[in-house]
Amino acid sequence: MAEGKDDTGDSKKLKEIAFIMFEGYEPLDAFGPAEIFGSLTDIYTQGFYSLDGGVVSCRQKVPLMTEKLESIGDRKPEIILIPGGFGTRQGVENEELIAHIKRLAEGAEYVMTVCTGTALLAKTGLLDGRKATTNKVAFSWVVSQGPKTEWNKAARWVVDDKYWTSSGVSAGMDMAFGFLADRFGAEFARKSATRIEYVWNENKDDDTFVAQV
Amino acid sequence: MAEGKDDTGDSKKLKEIAFIMFEGYEPLDAFGPAEIFGSLTDIYTQGFYSLDGGVVSCRQKVPLMTEKLESIGDRKPEIILIPGGFGTRQGVENEELIAHIKRLAEGAEYVMTVCTGTALLAKTGLLDGRKATTNKVAFSWVVSQGPKTEWNKAARWVVDDKYWTSSGVSAGMDMAFGFLADRFGAEFARKSATRIEYVWNENKDDDTFVAQV
Repeated sequence: MAEGKDDTGDSKKLKEIAFIMFEGYEPLDAFGPAEIFGSLTDIYTQGFYSLDGGVVSCRQKVPLMTEKLESIGDRKPEIILIPGGFGTRQGVENEELIAHIKRLAEGAEYVMTVCTGTALLAKTGLLDGRKATTNKVAFSWVVSQGPKTEWNKAARWVVDDKYWTSSGVSAGMDMAFGFLADRFGAEFARKSATRIEYVWNENKDDDTFVAQV
Repeated sequence: MAEGKDDTGDSKKLKEIAFIMFEGYEPLDAFGPAEIFGSLTDIYTQGFYSLDGGVVSCRQKVPLMTEKLESIGDRKPEIILIPGGFGTRQGVENEELIAHIKRLAEGAEYVMTVCTGTALLAKTGLLDGRKATTNKVAFSWVVSQGPKTEWNKAARWVVDDKYWTSSGVSAGMDMAFGFLADRFGAEFARKSATRIEYVWNENKDDDTFVAQV
């Protein structure tokens, strides 16, 4: 997956964004950011992985083809993204999945979670003592998976060192543009938002949807 | 595909939303609405189809498993959704694909297009004499595929009888919420937007991104 071709047909070494998928994922959590990172196809390729590989689906019946997480081997994808969804309820109990997430997150330069995907990362312990946020609707459940995390109830997304965590579903897109802004400048992020005709909520500290807990 | 199970395990007859996919599709065009129609899983199931079936991918490398369009047979999915993407440039030249789209659109109760997906529908002739909109960035190319259509350069989405057409990429989500509002009331649409923590642009006539042609 580390080798890719860009649109002009030139072969070159691309870095990887690895999405950690599972049965019962939330589509927009993963594919919103995947759409937005389409502005970076000259730098990154994207790969979708699950514990068993093959097709994983969800309540919305979107059948995604994935490779096995173990096929990543010793590679260290530069960015890891973990979506949320109802599948996270089983996910936090799956020691093999949590072990994969911990190993990949430790090796990555950036770790992003969207919505209840934050619970999977919290379960590894890597968010202990760190600032984070998550879905405002399922806030208390996620918090219970990371009792040592400093949870922010009002943020659209939170950045603590290499850990980028976002509020529910659509907030993952705002965070993805925030990442483009942080790495490549606000103008680049805004142009990318215009390309997909998206009204970007730029203020990470102010979420319309505040946790009522 | 017309038979489904709801979350409580009861089996019942579900209507179908059929997504017409192809190599080079734009992820958010399809999966934004697919996410939003997740609010309707007690009424609709969703199916993803392409000409040859199997995995179709895109610039963002999202590998989607699809069934063959011909497997739909005599079924008439109630809703057809056609996403855009660079693949539409080849799509408009593919007579077999256009024939499938025409047949399915004629049999459907609602036909939705997002972004340059509108070009594929325009190519069938079914938008002749009708009002429509499309991506504001690739506006002139889409217009060239439907010279007899009354194109709206300033709308976020346009409804003409059973045809729902939207502006670029993210506009498909605003249109999907517009469809929920039209069918099930504005309150239901707003609650669904809150579920995915999305700031819905409710005004279909006012697009931030106006075509500069």
